[in-house]
Amino acid sequence: MMRDLSHDRSLLSINSITVKPWSFEQLVEGCARAGLSAISPWRDILLACGIERAGKLVRAHGMTVTGLCRGGMFPATDAAGRRAALDDNRRAVDEAAAIGAQCLILVVGGLPTGSRDLGGARRQVHDTLAELLPYARQAGIPLAIEPLHPMYAADRACVNTLAQANDLCDQLGDGVGVAIDTYHVWWDPDLARQIARAGRRILAYHVNDWLVPTTDLLLDRGMMGDGVIDLRAVRAMVEAAGYRGHCEVEILSAGNWWKRDPDEVLRICIERHQNVV
Amino acid sequence: MMRDLSHDRSLLSINSITVKPWSFEQLVEGCARAGLSAISPWRDILLACGIERAGKLVRAHGMTVTGLCRGGMFPATDAAGRRAALDDNRRAVDEAAAIGAQCLILVVGGLPTGSRDLGGARRQVHDTLAELLPYARQAGIPLAIEPLHPMYAADRACVNTLAQANDLCDQLGDGVGVAIDTYHVWWDPDLARQIARAGRRILAYHVNDWLVPTTDLLLDRGMMGDGVIDLRAVRAMVEAAGYRGHCEVEILSAGNWWKRDPDEVLRICIERHQNVV
Repeated sequence: MMRDLSHDRSLLSINSITVKPWSFEQLVEGCARAGLSAISPWRDILLACGIERAGKLVRAHGMTVTGLCRGGMFPATDAAGRRAALDDNRRAVDEAAAIGAQCLILVVGGLPTGSRDLGGARRQVHDTLAELLPYARQAGIPLAIEPLHPMYAADRACVNTLAQANDLCDQLGDGVGVAIDTYHVWWDPDLARQIARAGRRILAYHVNDWLVPTTDLLLDRGMMGDGVIDLRAVRAMVEAAGYRGHCEVEILSAGNWWKRDPDEVLRICIERHQNVV
Repeated sequence: MMRDLSHDRSLLSINSITVKPWSFEQLVEGCARAGLSAISPWRDILLACGIERAGKLVRAHGMTVTGLCRGGMFPATDAAGRRAALDDNRRAVDEAAAIGAQCLILVVGGLPTGSRDLGGARRQVHDTLAELLPYARQAGIPLAIEPLHPMYAADRACVNTLAQANDLCDQLGDGVGVAIDTYHVWWDPDLARQIARAGRRILAYHVNDWLVPTTDLLLDRGMMGDGVIDLRAVRAMVEAAGYRGHCEVEILSAGNWWKRDPDEVLRICIERHQNVV
């Protein structure tokens, strides 16, 4: 039985990149103004606001923080690079804890500069995750591995299917789960099976759409309903797997949504959340 | 034991899209001039030349035709559309036979206009293939299913992994195989296993490279060696699976290679074939 979202605002979370012109303060206040109670910030606006002040704002407005975007970027050319990545991820865990985020979203990173060793990059992701995990468990911050679309394998994430993310969860144990983003996984012929397999390990669910045509590999995501993803079908799978959390809108759109008034963007997110997601 | 290509020209095939400015006549004559003996034309230049004349040119120059690009585009909105696709594919089979092509490359098609039913499109691909197959068997033209990169799932091909193409081969039986293009499959964590599984069903092997950054979803493919694909590793897998055919260069590159003198492009293809592929 799918949840009825047709009058819902409580299960909608806004990822800060969707309303890119806004600062952290504006995000919290804008969402509150729109009757929303959940956000997922990127680290840049969080750090620009200041962690302590951001935590106070979150608590003052009773906001749920469905995730912090993002840790990851693990593969590196040498040991110093891997240590730097690990240090940065520990800081991200601390930041997630400070604002009470439900998880830390991981974009795991692609090939180190000059490398063609995709298998090696994937092994580095496993190994650095294993090293980070005790720290995250200690802090009580679940790590959400987000498989990214295969078109990002070289430069953003070498975990490109939910099957891979599930394998990593099996290998690493407690404290690790997955973030499922419709944009990244909608094409996967193995999707239904892998969502069922993920089950209770689904820590976050991100919604948006795949536009036809797509004019840019990174910055041309669509608003839910404007593309070809069968969003209702994917949510049905995710909920059948046991997920009861928020639907988080994450749209990178340099040519369209980033140019609009963020208050208008929120209004449309709410409308689509209720009618399309 | 991998084949030594370091002085080879005989296993290099040129897909006509790589030298887009050329007509079919220019392709045959240009390849002959460069000491090459294998081509893979797209249907547009073949039809512009005329099938009969094209066949004569191929035979006069002793050219091997490693494939005809392309059949496919099966999913349609209604029965009339599916019939039209089937008819067009039968014509493509005839054309492939007329020029002695080793296979007909299939780009299977994506979502019909207005549809979000990816599973339905995939079922249509299976069903129309099953309907086309007796005709292709009769003509002695093997059908090569080419899995396309997941970024083309909506508008070009809803077969997006080699696993899917292998599944279709299992279901359909003799007369169907796969075309493996490095650009489309290099990211796949299941690649080694699926290439081994494809085995003798590998009908064509296409080479090129994935550029970082990639600036266009369709027309920014790289020359072998200019990107991040471990081409030697992929060829090792393909040859270990039993493949002994050509390495066919297929590069769609509006901003770079299509602007160059095709004779120069061929020279560079030969050099990279010998040193990078």
